Amino acid sequence: MENYQHILIAADFSEHGRQVITRAQELAERYQAKLSICHILEDFPIADFAYEPMISIDVDMRDAMLDSGKKHLADIGRKFNIPTENQWVEFGSPSLNLVRLAESNHVDLIVVGSHGRHGIKLLLGSTANGILHHALCDVLAVRLTKE
Amino acid sequence: MENYQHILIAADFSEHGRQVITRAQELAERYQAKLSICHILEDFPIADFAYEPMISIDVDMRDAMLDSGKKHLADIGRKFNIPTENQWVEFGSPSLNLVRLAESNHVDLIVVGSHGRHGIKLLLGSTANGILHHALCDVLAVRLTKE
Repeated sequence: MENYQHILIAADFSEHGRQVITRAQELAERYQAKLSICHILEDFPIADFAYEPMISIDVDMRDAMLDSGKKHLADIGRKFNIPTENQWVEFGSPSLNLVRLAESNHVDLIVVGSHGRHGIKLLLGSTANGILHHALCDVLAVRLTKE
Repeated sequence: MENYQHILIAADFSEHGRQVITRAQELAERYQAKLSICHILEDFPIADFAYEPMISIDVDMRDAMLDSGKKHLADIGRKFNIPTENQWVEFGSPSLNLVRLAESNHVDLIVVGSHGRHGIKLLLGSTANGILHHALCDVLAVRLTKE
């Protein structure tokens, strides 16, 4: 069985996200694996306040969100020693885009946070779940706990 | 972040199950963690051939299934150096019983095989999925591939 060589963090910038990054970094050190991080921005339509038909995120808002995502990842990258070229931010489906990124970059382990049995995410189908369904590599779901 | 101290293998005795065990054992060595293995036998009712009401597995059949499961685990235990007291076989729900076993034995990482996007398991809700939903610890889904 091969050692993990490329570990990808699915970052969600939540308050507990540091647990996912810390575990992934620790595994990357143990395996001497390359460590990457990505954040997928959901391109969901937004209902306006007068209950008019849903409006999509406009170009300016997309750019602002991308910039903000990149800055977030850059901060994490500095703190956890992940180089800029291993930081990816894009719009799309959190699970599908992440799995596609993993495949095209020969990732062999995706590390993602899991909210477990609690919370609305369970009903909606969590990101961890979606990744598990679609990934062609191993997936480590780190159980998020209050710190 | 603490190192993993007790790793539990969710064994399904499938033809690809060895990949799960190998990865779990390799992780246990890296973390110097205790390694356990369990197999949950599904207590499903069986339809008889004349489409009569479903009949449950009878006591003799349960005993035979338990014995067979224990023998399987004992074989694996010998091969992968997992002592008898860390081998568990029981009837129940593959995800719920496993998660309960994990909790009562302070397991901090469950390792389970994942069939990914293919196969009927995806439609039915896979064991990996159920474990992910319910576990209070980390879950590593090892992507099963043809060997």
